[in-house]
Amino acid sequence: MKANLVPIETLGPCKYDSPYLGREGSTFISDQEGVLYEVHQREITDHCEAGGLTFFELAGPRKRIFYNPKNLTCGIVTCGGLCPGLNNVIRAIVRELNEHYGVTDILGFRYGYSGLTANSKYEPLRLDADNVDEIHDQGGTILGSSRGAQDAKSIIKALLRRRVKILFTVGGDGTMKGAKAIADYKREKKLDISVVAIPKTIDNDINYVSRSFGFETAVQSSMDIIENAHAEAKGFPNGVGLVKFMGRQSGFIAAYATLASGDVNYCLIPEVPFILDGPGGFLESLKNRLKRKLHAVIVVAEGAGQELVRKPGEKAEFDPSGNIKLKDIGVYLKTEIEKYFEKIKMEVNVKYIDPSYIIRSVPANSMDSYYCLILGQCAVHAGMTGRTNMLVGSWNDHLIHVPISMATAEKKRVNPERRLWKTVMESTVQSYSMFRK
Amino acid sequence: MKANLVPIETLGPCKYDSPYLGREGSTFISDQEGVLYEVHQREITDHCEAGGLTFFELAGPRKRIFYNPKNLTCGIVTCGGLCPGLNNVIRAIVRELNEHYGVTDILGFRYGYSGLTANSKYEPLRLDADNVDEIHDQGGTILGSSRGAQDAKSIIKALLRRRVKILFTVGGDGTMKGAKAIADYKREKKLDISVVAIPKTIDNDINYVSRSFGFETAVQSSMDIIENAHAEAKGFPNGVGLVKFMGRQSGFIAAYATLASGDVNYCLIPEVPFILDGPGGFLESLKNRLKRKLHAVIVVAEGAGQELVRKPGEKAEFDPSGNIKLKDIGVYLKTEIEKYFEKIKMEVNVKYIDPSYIIRSVPANSMDSYYCLILGQCAVHAGMTGRTNMLVGSWNDHLIHVPISMATAEKKRVNPERRLWKTVMESTVQSYSMFRK
Amino acid sequence: MKANLVPIETLGPCKYDSPYLGREGSTFISDQEGVLYEVHQREITDHCEAGGLTFFELAGPRKRIFYNPKNLTCGIVTCGGLCPGLNNVIRAIVRELNEHYGVTDILGFRYGYSGLTANSKYEPLRLDADNVDEIHDQGGTILGSSRGAQDAKSIIKALLRRRVKILFTVGGDGTMKGAKAIADYKREKKLDISVVAIPKTIDNDINYVSRSFGFETAVQSSMDIIENAHAEAKGFPNGVGLVKFMGRQSGFIAAYATLASGDVNYCLIPEVPFILDGPGGFLESLKNRLKRKLHAVIVVAEGAGQELVRKPGEKAEFDPSGNIKLKDIGVYLKTEIEKYFEKIKMEVNVKYIDPSYIIRSVPANSMDSYYCLILGQCAVHAGMTGRTNMLVGSWNDHLIHVPISMATAEKKRVNPERRLWKTVMESTVQSYSMFRK
Amino acid sequence: MKANLVPIETLGPCKYDSPYLGREGSTFISDQEGVLYEVHQREITDHCEAGGLTFFELAGPRKRIFYNPKNLTCGIVTCGGLCPGLNNVIRAIVRELNEHYGVTDILGFRYGYSGLTANSKYEPLRLDADNVDEIHDQGGTILGSSRGAQDAKSIIKALLRRRVKILFTVGGDGTMKGAKAIADYKREKKLDISVVAIPKTIDNDINYVSRSFGFETAVQSSMDIIENAHAEAKGFPNGVGLVKFMGRQSGFIAAYATLASGDVNYCLIPEVPFILDGPGGFLESLKNRLKRKLHAVIVVAEGAGQELVRKPGEKAEFDPSGNIKLKDIGVYLKTEIEKYFEKIKMEVNVKYIDPSYIIRSVPANSMDSYYCLILGQCAVHAGMTGRTNMLVGSWNDHLIHVPISMATAEKKRVNPERRLWKTVMESTVQSYSMFRK
Repeated sequence: MKANLVPIETLGPCKYDSPYLGREGSTFISDQEGVLYEVHQREITDHCEAGGLTFFELAGPRKRIFYNPKNLTCGIVTCGGLCPGLNNVIRAIVRELNEHYGVTDILGFRYGYSGLTANSKYEPLRLDADNVDEIHDQGGTILGSSRGAQDAKSIIKALLRRRVKILFTVGGDGTMKGAKAIADYKREKKLDISVVAIPKTIDNDINYVSRSFGFETAVQSSMDIIENAHAEAKGFPNGVGLVKFMGRQSGFIAAYATLASGDVNYCLIPEVPFILDGPGGFLESLKNRLKRKLHAVIVVAEGAGQELVRKPGEKAEFDPSGNIKLKDIGVYLKTEIEKYFEKIKMEVNVKYIDPSYIIRSVPANSMDSYYCLILGQCAVHAGMTGRTNMLVGSWNDHLIHVPISMATAEKKRVNPERRLWKTVMESTVQSYSMFRK
Repeated sequence: MKANLVPIETLGPCKYDSPYLGREGSTFISDQEGVLYEVHQREITDHCEAGGLTFFELAGPRKRIFYNPKNLTCGIVTCGGLCPGLNNVIRAIVRELNEHYGVTDILGFRYGYSGLTANSKYEPLRLDADNVDEIHDQGGTILGSSRGAQDAKSIIKALLRRRVKILFTVGGDGTMKGAKAIADYKREKKLDISVVAIPKTIDNDINYVSRSFGFETAVQSSMDIIENAHAEAKGFPNGVGLVKFMGRQSGFIAAYATLASGDVNYCLIPEVPFILDGPGGFLESLKNRLKRKLHAVIVVAEGAGQELVRKPGEKAEFDPSGNIKLKDIGVYLKTEIEKYFEKIKMEVNVKYIDPSYIIRSVPANSMDSYYCLILGQCAVHAGMTGRTNMLVGSWNDHLIHVPISMATAEKKRVNPERRLWKTVMESTVQSYSMFRK
Repeated sequence: MKANLVPIETLGPCKYDSPYLGREGSTFISDQEGVLYEVHQREITDHCEAGGLTFFELAGPRKRIFYNPKNLTCGIVTCGGLCPGLNNVIRAIVRELNEHYGVTDILGFRYGYSGLTANSKYEPLRLDADNVDEIHDQGGTILGSSRGAQDAKSIIKALLRRRVKILFTVGGDGTMKGAKAIADYKREKKLDISVVAIPKTIDNDINYVSRSFGFETAVQSSMDIIENAHAEAKGFPNGVGLVKFMGRQSGFIAAYATLASGDVNYCLIPEVPFILDGPGGFLESLKNRLKRKLHAVIVVAEGAGQELVRKPGEKAEFDPSGNIKLKDIGVYLKTEIEKYFEKIKMEVNVKYIDPSYIIRSVPANSMDSYYCLILGQCAVHAGMTGRTNMLVGSWNDHLIHVPISMATAEKKRVNPERRLWKTVMESTVQSYSMFRK
Repeated sequence: MKANLVPIETLGPCKYDSPYLGREGSTFISDQEGVLYEVHQREITDHCEAGGLTFFELAGPRKRIFYNPKNLTCGIVTCGGLCPGLNNVIRAIVRELNEHYGVTDILGFRYGYSGLTANSKYEPLRLDADNVDEIHDQGGTILGSSRGAQDAKSIIKALLRRRVKILFTVGGDGTMKGAKAIADYKREKKLDISVVAIPKTIDNDINYVSRSFGFETAVQSSMDIIENAHAEAKGFPNGVGLVKFMGRQSGFIAAYATLASGDVNYCLIPEVPFILDGPGGFLESLKNRLKRKLHAVIVVAEGAGQELVRKPGEKAEFDPSGNIKLKDIGVYLKTEIEKYFEKIKMEVNVKYIDPSYIIRSVPANSMDSYYCLILGQCAVHAGMTGRTNMLVGSWNDHLIHVPISMATAEKKRVNPERRLWKTVMESTVQSYSMFRK
């Protein structure tokens, strides 16, 4: 059988021994160790017999490294929206570089890529093991963040001026596309600069990242808020607790929070368009439930039902990161529910909760803390070997190396035909008639 | 010196011994025990020499009671918005009646006064020590609630039909005015029905109630949310974390949460009108702070700045409880800030959080749990003696009896001339120039 | 290539259609779907070419089932120590049986196997979707639990008397061995009773269960308590915060909590024996750290260092479940530290925390809630098909079927040669000289 | 009527204007404003007619101050066990001195009085508004603490050497007696050094401090742990959840946590000696409860039942602060319960929880945060006026000045004849027969 390893771009052969070498108890990952890409039995047997199985490189420390840790300068930048665990990742990178590779020159660029341009007004922070020691107790990012891309050329100029050889970018889709642009540009210019991404997405929508950091913490906060909505719903006659969660294109937070809570009756996500009006539609179903149970809890992901909210012919608007500006499905649903029940002359008490930033600005829970630690460490190991244009992903419970282009080719989304969504359907007991086929 | 006791209405002389009598270890409150009304030294010395000092009746168990506990039926109703501790109060009333007075017939009316009318469609729940045993772990109210008054005559009719002799009403200003209407009507009709109120107001705005139940829990939730806003503010260049809290006419939640947090730079409350535009105004002050510190946290009570939001000549609208419908100061401020900074061409990143129901639907914290317990017990003690048309208040660390009309004569509000507000001014370092004189 | 499926015992061919069949949106798992057993690339390629790869059955709903849901009686029993999520598992089983298979006769046996004997004094509870609706908000188990085995024959007698056809056992190693004994006995007697286990172990020490339910919640509580220890350690000169965690034979809680916290300086687990005295030993290392940093945080799993605590020649004692009674390593370490520092005349302030039951009696966090839900559902699906003598495990992010004997053959333990422990060594910066080779 | 103000020692007449003077919006407390000492109506009327009423000075900013803020050096020291809110108090003192009085030279002495001796090896920290900005998010004290007194002469020497004029001591009984010794010594030497105490006692046992800071937070943690004990108790046949709380001489934490929780069946405190054996004793009562309910929750304060634990004729031992070393009532009770039930051949499952440091090392909750803020501010106001040998207390919801000797004359304890204990008796339904008369 043939084993195909997903290739990762590198700057060249490793010329130095790792400082781990000779240290007692050190173990290393060989470049031939891999994590199987295929998951399903049929796929595995088929591929086995055809071209062979595909493996991702296993992340972790290598015996030989590309950069000389002496006089090496590294940079870190955090981009996009806040996410639990950002400070943990920063701390893990700094400590691994500092304590284990002996790298002392580490710059924290301020406010995302906007602090990383040739003429940025924001001076980077100098980071060391001491000044990052307690940052993981706080939510947010001590570096600050921002949305939006910057010119790759200008960023390279800033990196060169400060002699940064490894840039760690923590951010989402847009950030990683930016990281790729930087990597592409510097390859063209033959510069020995590595760009290693740690994928950040509270929506959990990046491929080859089975669960993104911060996601669990976000689900925990969401579950707590559903409890509030439940209390409000039960507190008033025909009470409806309506909560809007993050999830622009992928409803993972909404789906997991629904299953974790056990108190949700309707879960609406972008991947499964729903029908508002008419027989079997959402409003009629809600009416029937209220008649039976006197209350209902509804969870809606912000990206759900956009086709309902947008007026016919209305053009989409975009934010600085190039994301479509979403229409507010929460406010829309609240209004539509109230209009419907007014029309049918039935009392309804809609309690609408838009927790927004509350969910993403908390400190990481314990599992996310652990996860951010090993993500940061593995990003450093990868960077030190001259790997570039890649991200640290997770697959079958192992951390792996993934080319940025492969991970950003498309979004990970909830598959309406698979177990997660089926379990949501069964647990909420919401009807298939409510959804478009 | 003369001691004047604030008189409390009663149905008549107490004809029965309390079941506590003869029970080992029992102690009783004499009707002559009082809690001093006056607080300030000057007042005390002045009154002492003039007409005498004024005292509130101390709440607690009495030796003699008005009702025969055998065959007595009691009712409980919870009205208005949710508040942490409602279930604790219900539990305390039921347990005190049941376990200590031997009253077994206790009705929980559903959905506020709307479950307490002659022809209500909602059947009351039968409550006993068993089925209320674990309700205090949940937020909300197991009885449900609703806004709005009902006809006193219809309520009396419902009470008579179910032979309810003591009605415990847990609710705010409107509820207590309703309770007073019932008490007045049944006095006129010479019915031996007691109405005892437990004042509920998450805004902490009822007089002779130095701290209303649920308030501490609300301040805790609010402080946590300010931490979120702080992380968001620091996370972006010129980041502004803007949080709207409850507080229709009184800014106690905003003020206490500001002081508890220590991270708030601006605190805006209904009692102290602020100036938006012009030199020394809020917007200019915010600009200066952002220039110095790159971020700011703003807390605004929902009732603040209504004179700014309302258009000239615009008529006020009212909700079913008769409260003015407030204009959304949070959204207004967000918009005005963004407009201002766009005009002066300075970047700003406003992160607006409207936690709304999240704060009021959580279970009570430990001090509120304790407080709800003794409130419920004292309400029962008062009711059993035939006291009526009164509420259980708290004054100088003691629970007291207060006539409803005295407590509802006006709202308790933050006094801009006294320590609480002065401390807010000093802690936020916000400028007096921002506020109207 | 050959695909070998790990065989699962069944009672016979499935004779009935699942009630899911014909229901809109239903999907099913084929009995041929499998999850790959092998993890490492070398293993995979080797096996591929030799006897073929091995797969576990994928858990989930099947089209055809063994039992007729009408008149079917099922039983649930929870055994051993408390663990976060027990009530979630009970709730998930009851709801899946009740709402989706239409099984209405569900018995909850009280206090572990002691409620499941022929002459038990504890009557089982009748469970339905209503009375389990809110149990997941509480820690512990509504059924109660107990340690210790019971005679398989007596249990079978109890099951027969109550006509229980599927028994769901939630418990650890001992429980599952009990479940196996029941299954073996009834196979011998040719009875059509299924025994399906949901593995419960807060120590996370069961094979083919990559993370046991409740484990994450336990790590979260542990991380919070390390924060306390950290504050105490920093609070006094030469302060030592010493915390003992659960972990009889496996140090997973200690290891994960150490990594999640980031504040731990020493992590001692059963798998890696440590040296107390002498040059390079634990005590000397602690002295050096205190001289440099003035404080230290130590985490020790209860099963660590037993060879130090036990006196030479001392015989082991056993508890009712057959587990060795551990000597208290926490108290031992506290005493040894104090003795050592007294001897070298150096001040030390040891603050010892033994959180014991605090960690295991809390409600499940969101991810554990989700996980318990799908575990319970999959256990029901498996039971309905007549599978028996098996447990629901998790492998490579999927739920699977595992024969009980395979999972209980040996304990899962922290491997000192692999990444988890290496990361602990690097993060704590504790020295290899402290540990036995 | 005569008004008697409790006199507070001062260093001399105030010679300087407060920096608040002339600042917009400033208000001041007059030295004649007082808070009434007497609480009960009878006392008030009696005293009114006899020698007059007694008032405490109201704390707060004064117009005129004793020290020139320019070149003034202040010191802060935290002593004794940890308590939630220590960092908040430090932060409040530093900010008030720094931002409002313009004092920039503030020393934080390390590790209690042991950092405040003439030849201490610990250098004090320099404190300013910046380096205390985020310390309130952490439990413990950034200064460190220690038990035990030091020679007043040596402390004065250290203060003189560093030219400290105002010393803020945050600590308990022992600390305040130390503060008094310093004040007495320096009065004798005619030095213009102020000593202002902020009373710290998690046990809430200081007179004229109606609720000490950190107490509420401790009660909250305690209530959470009672929930754990409750789950454990219900989890096993004849399960007994036994929790030991802090409370050496005063059972306030145990009493309040019992009332807040609502799940406690036995509450044992130092103030009310209990009877273990014999008819009507604790063990018999426990047996009866277990027979009826199958589980029980017991809360015991560490100082309870010492007369039972101590062997006849056994001498008391003392710790460095001069406190009696308590015998472990928790372990004693656990053993006695197990022995008793073994004797009567009844199964019992005692789950003993000793949360110890877990309760006191957490960050302050919101109300304690608020309270620490105003305590710290008022301590600064008092110190600046040259007041000395006093503490900031709280009485009838106001902060006041109290002479140290008055507050330390005796401990505040739970009065078995008053409402708090009566409410505990009623809520737990424990029997009076269990307690000594």
